[in-house]
Amino acid sequence: MRRVAVVGAAGFAGALCAALVARHPSLELACVTARSDAGLRLDQVYPRHRVALELEPFQPDAVAERAEAALVAYPHGASIPVVSELHARGLKVVDLSADFRLEQHRYERFYGPHAAPGLLAEAVYGLPELGHRDAIRHAELVAGPGCYPTAALLALWPLRELMSDAIVDAKSGVSGAGREATGTTHFVSVAENVNPYKVEGHRHRAELDQELGEAKPVTFTPHLLPLDQGLLASCYVTPVRELSAADVRELFATAYADEPFVELAEGPPGVRDVRETNLCRIHATVEPATGRVLVFAAIDNLWKGAASQAVQDLNLMLGVPEAEGLGATATRAAAPGRAPGRTEQVPS
Amino acid sequence: MRRVAVVGAAGFAGALCAALVARHPSLELACVTARSDAGLRLDQVYPRHRVALELEPFQPDAVAERAEAALVAYPHGASIPVVSELHARGLKVVDLSADFRLEQHRYERFYGPHAAPGLLAEAVYGLPELGHRDAIRHAELVAGPGCYPTAALLALWPLRELMSDAIVDAKSGVSGAGREATGTTHFVSVAENVNPYKVEGHRHRAELDQELGEAKPVTFTPHLLPLDQGLLASCYVTPVRELSAADVRELFATAYADEPFVELAEGPPGVRDVRETNLCRIHATVEPATGRVLVFAAIDNLWKGAASQAVQDLNLMLGVPEAEGLGATATRAAAPGRAPGRTEQVPS
Amino acid sequence: MRRVAVVGAAGFAGALCAALVARHPSLELACVTARSDAGLRLDQVYPRHRVALELEPFQPDAVAERAEAALVAYPHGASIPVVSELHARGLKVVDLSADFRLEQHRYERFYGPHAAPGLLAEAVYGLPELGHRDAIRHAELVAGPGCYPTAALLALWPLRELMSDAIVDAKSGVSGAGREATGTTHFVSVAENVNPYKVEGHRHRAELDQELGEAKPVTFTPHLLPLDQGLLASCYVTPVRELSAADVRELFATAYADEPFVELAEGPPGVRDVRETNLCRIHATVEPATGRVLVFAAIDNLWKGAASQAVQDLNLMLGVPEAEGLGATATRAAAPGRAPGRTEQVPS
Amino acid sequence: MRRVAVVGAAGFAGALCAALVARHPSLELACVTARSDAGLRLDQVYPRHRVALELEPFQPDAVAERAEAALVAYPHGASIPVVSELHARGLKVVDLSADFRLEQHRYERFYGPHAAPGLLAEAVYGLPELGHRDAIRHAELVAGPGCYPTAALLALWPLRELMSDAIVDAKSGVSGAGREATGTTHFVSVAENVNPYKVEGHRHRAELDQELGEAKPVTFTPHLLPLDQGLLASCYVTPVRELSAADVRELFATAYADEPFVELAEGPPGVRDVRETNLCRIHATVEPATGRVLVFAAIDNLWKGAASQAVQDLNLMLGVPEAEGLGATATRAAAPGRAPGRTEQVPS
Repeated sequence: MRRVAVVGAAGFAGALCAALVARHPSLELACVTARSDAGLRLDQVYPRHRVALELEPFQPDAVAERAEAALVAYPHGASIPVVSELHARGLKVVDLSADFRLEQHRYERFYGPHAAPGLLAEAVYGLPELGHRDAIRHAELVAGPGCYPTAALLALWPLRELMSDAIVDAKSGVSGAGREATGTTHFVSVAENVNPYKVEGHRHRAELDQELGEAKPVTFTPHLLPLDQGLLASCYVTPVRELSAADVRELFATAYADEPFVELAEGPPGVRDVRETNLCRIHATVEPATGRVLVFAAIDNLWKGAASQAVQDLNLMLGVPEAEGLGATATRAAAPGRAPGRTEQVPS
Repeated sequence: MRRVAVVGAAGFAGALCAALVARHPSLELACVTARSDAGLRLDQVYPRHRVALELEPFQPDAVAERAEAALVAYPHGASIPVVSELHARGLKVVDLSADFRLEQHRYERFYGPHAAPGLLAEAVYGLPELGHRDAIRHAELVAGPGCYPTAALLALWPLRELMSDAIVDAKSGVSGAGREATGTTHFVSVAENVNPYKVEGHRHRAELDQELGEAKPVTFTPHLLPLDQGLLASCYVTPVRELSAADVRELFATAYADEPFVELAEGPPGVRDVRETNLCRIHATVEPATGRVLVFAAIDNLWKGAASQAVQDLNLMLGVPEAEGLGATATRAAAPGRAPGRTEQVPS
Repeated sequence: MRRVAVVGAAGFAGALCAALVARHPSLELACVTARSDAGLRLDQVYPRHRVALELEPFQPDAVAERAEAALVAYPHGASIPVVSELHARGLKVVDLSADFRLEQHRYERFYGPHAAPGLLAEAVYGLPELGHRDAIRHAELVAGPGCYPTAALLALWPLRELMSDAIVDAKSGVSGAGREATGTTHFVSVAENVNPYKVEGHRHRAELDQELGEAKPVTFTPHLLPLDQGLLASCYVTPVRELSAADVRELFATAYADEPFVELAEGPPGVRDVRETNLCRIHATVEPATGRVLVFAAIDNLWKGAASQAVQDLNLMLGVPEAEGLGATATRAAAPGRAPGRTEQVPS
Repeated sequence: MRRVAVVGAAGFAGALCAALVARHPSLELACVTARSDAGLRLDQVYPRHRVALELEPFQPDAVAERAEAALVAYPHGASIPVVSELHARGLKVVDLSADFRLEQHRYERFYGPHAAPGLLAEAVYGLPELGHRDAIRHAELVAGPGCYPTAALLALWPLRELMSDAIVDAKSGVSGAGREATGTTHFVSVAENVNPYKVEGHRHRAELDQELGEAKPVTFTPHLLPLDQGLLASCYVTPVRELSAADVRELFATAYADEPFVELAEGPPGVRDVRETNLCRIHATVEPATGRVLVFAAIDNLWKGAASQAVQDLNLMLGVPEAEGLGATATRAAAPGRAPGRTEQVPS
């Protein structure tokens, strides 16, 4: 059993990290830390996760004594010092914040100077399916991708050489906004509503540019939906040359042939299809009238968009089987069928 | 008081038509008809509307005796004979189905031969804001636009000379699918979910082509959301020449300066902002990184997308003030502000 | 036009008060005040209400100059000084907080010493249907009842002489918790959930005791539901003597024969039946197996449970027709029927 | 590996049975059958369960050849012939319908003559925690309890000798109504609503009478809530003698000391706390003002209320460890704490 700490376990993603580690056959949950909730037991804050450990204040030495690796789920901006201390003590770290995802020049455009540029240069972008798997295996520090980039990148990756532009209309459940109670996350603001936000530029775009190449002008617009967990990226791509629906299907089938957590479906995915899984379910096709390539990618923003993807990265880093402890893997040739919710009566 | 019948008053849109007419200061609800629910009182089927009239089976002569105008809310395909009979008896009609919205050649591409081409040729497309106001005033038959086209067209209309293409990512609440109970409208299919559908071609596109001109290749993709009433069209437009955010704002301000039911907002609208109103609330801007024009248009699919827009049309046809009986009109210079649900904490 | 101020118009109930006054045919919205949102226009905070007035800091003299009456929607505890100042300047006041609802000895049991006992003694409990109508007409200060007591009292009032005990299992939407963002009102805490709370004693019980008489041991348990506006009180009453369903129906029909805002239904009400109305919809019957009287009362917690009931009280105080500006009144002999949502398939 | 068939796997509960068996370490999913969906793969109907078996028409011989036990999830009334045929072929059966839950005289009061009274006499009521564990171990046919009785009985069982009466106000998510699309399960009927139903007598009461003894007059009222999975029974018990909160706590702690799937909490449970688990989470206390015992019991209606409880029964029948394949077991001394959704701001 490999001993793993979860630092920042009182937030939504951190708590799920702790639950996943606690149930993992090859990992042992060494300790959990929190800031304002220290002293409580984790199952007092999240009864549903049933992790009965007490949340401790963060002490790097105490963590290092008990664990060889850590999942860090601090708010963006707060991760750098914590990750630095754990790294200095020899722990392998997966950081779920935005602090180590971007190359320095991209980071500084959005956030200003980085406090640990050396460490930043070492960090590997934790999306194994985008060709980073080997680098992750050998990394000491992995930066878990953002929830929106995870879905958008998995949707666009097989098309990266063939797209002249792309529009990503992304829709997220409220858990993506984190546990902090604000006007935006108030039930009354969200229920029976849908809100686009940060439409003139969301920082997640930088991750798309970094992974897809600057040359592709990607429009990215997030929307907040009245649901808890779930994220859908609806992508509209103008191809550089004419593609048939069969071409596109083939392209995706080849790109993801061996991926345990990418599921290709013959019809559009719903976010419920992937709730509480590490899966990204994708449907790619061509709109006959315009020749545009349409790709729909659904994930659970707290799982593949955050916590379970971090555990997938950690599995690779520790030499544990990549899919272990992560539940469902992809159904091959996932059919669209007559699923409830997939039949005729829709707004016409 | 002008006497108005509602034919097909047991569906969601028809029932709302009846409620709006019943409360209208210049209209009188002459009778309501239904098919399988005939014999019930309308408030047994929809307590919330508090219309205590009994639903009658449809008899054209009986309707013609009591009313000078009718709102017809039959399913697509079933309207032609009903509208024909009422028209033959001299009633002014607003039809809410798709049966009279399209020019004959467009109609036949999607639906086959039209059973009443002469009447179809007379029908006026009932979106006053798109330059049809005068034609509606003089029409005997008006075809109420689809819910998706209403939002998409109001979003794209001011840009029609300036767009080289457009993508409409549309999101609708479940009431748009109508009252019929199916797998798709089952609560369990919709809750905690979001589903794209008919992604390879929805018939509503034909309305966009007709109004905007064939030359604009518009991609249109509908999504079903876990909410009751509300529809958002998120539109992504490549302009033919560079436009600044100020240019775009000016364009919309000019186009809709005198429109009582188009509300221009300085930030993205939520569908809750227009729930149970005849308003379309729009925010138009430019994405700095790509130069794309982004337009977000929110309506209540049952109101401006169906029933209240039909009453707006009827007001024009009957010479009643256009905005009468329709509740809220647009706030000028609607501000984005620090609305609950509009503040910081969002999936980042 | 009678000039009315809304003090504390940035909360959910206060904002709705402002909207109702602004649309009222006999009232004029003189000014709106707020604490932290002062300086914003009300429609920046609540676009849906479309009230374009600027929120001002509260200044009693400024309010008194412009208005002859005020609706005060401050948090519990904060109302006393504000109401005192307005009352001292001669304004008629309806206060929506808990500060003036209880007789002094009851108040002090829950909240400690009252800072304005003289004024408290003058205040009239603002539930006209409970025999307070005449007192309200002549009052200078009316205390708007709590949302839970409004529904529970309207459900139990006709039975007050006949009940040996009562259990009120109450279910409320989240707007009842107010605008403040907390863990409890976070979308993720509420969605797909239902939570009982304060099960060992909610302060609202004191209002029940006061109005029904101490001798009736009423159990009251509130539950938080995943919906925005709506409150249902399910009441279980052991009668002092055997009652038939017909007896109970008769009792309610007599008690509420002339009430414009109490609607008696032949089947259980849903909260959607009364959303955005000042109505309380009630179904009362007897369980054959046990002889227990069951009463279900549905209101909109923000309307009849707060803002619209305050306007109803104000109408009485100002000599305006009681139902004016309040929308729908009760359908007589409201039928249960085959309402959507009222047919067969339910958890069995 | 013990081979298990799921008969009626296209409904909500049947599909979950199939998913639970497919992932179970000691069971093997031998085959799945359906009526109208035969020919489809189960993952076409329920992508989320990721069971790629084809649904077959029901053929008792074909099932008997491949399986030694079956879970039958047919609608109430349709189960008797299917169960009879499987039983005749020697399979152990857990039936999820109401067809074998009641003693003959009780059954016939609600449903008329039973078509297989001999088999009915053999059936064991499948609630292990109510003293049926040993009988289940030796049974050939087990009747899975209804979802409402499961929660209500677990709430009332420790009080059965001490209660003079009880009221069960039960609240269920929509999945309990099954997959059939009806007006009642239409999203628009359920969203933003709460509806009591069958308030004058629900057939589930008969299960309460059978297990608790006729002498206790139990009032039982179900309500439909706007959520998918989850059921809460709020129980109000008048005790035969005065009980303190500590007495009640002790009573429950003793009764359920060794139960793996009953979780006692120090504060009221939310249904989210048990979503997708086989747990019943209970909080029992005394209302100081009235001396009434209050018990709140939360389950997932599709899990402990149907499918996972059936697997728990099957585990016992097959000699497999009772908790195997069922996920989370109860946390001892589950704390109420400062859970999100459990803090201050509630409708007051």
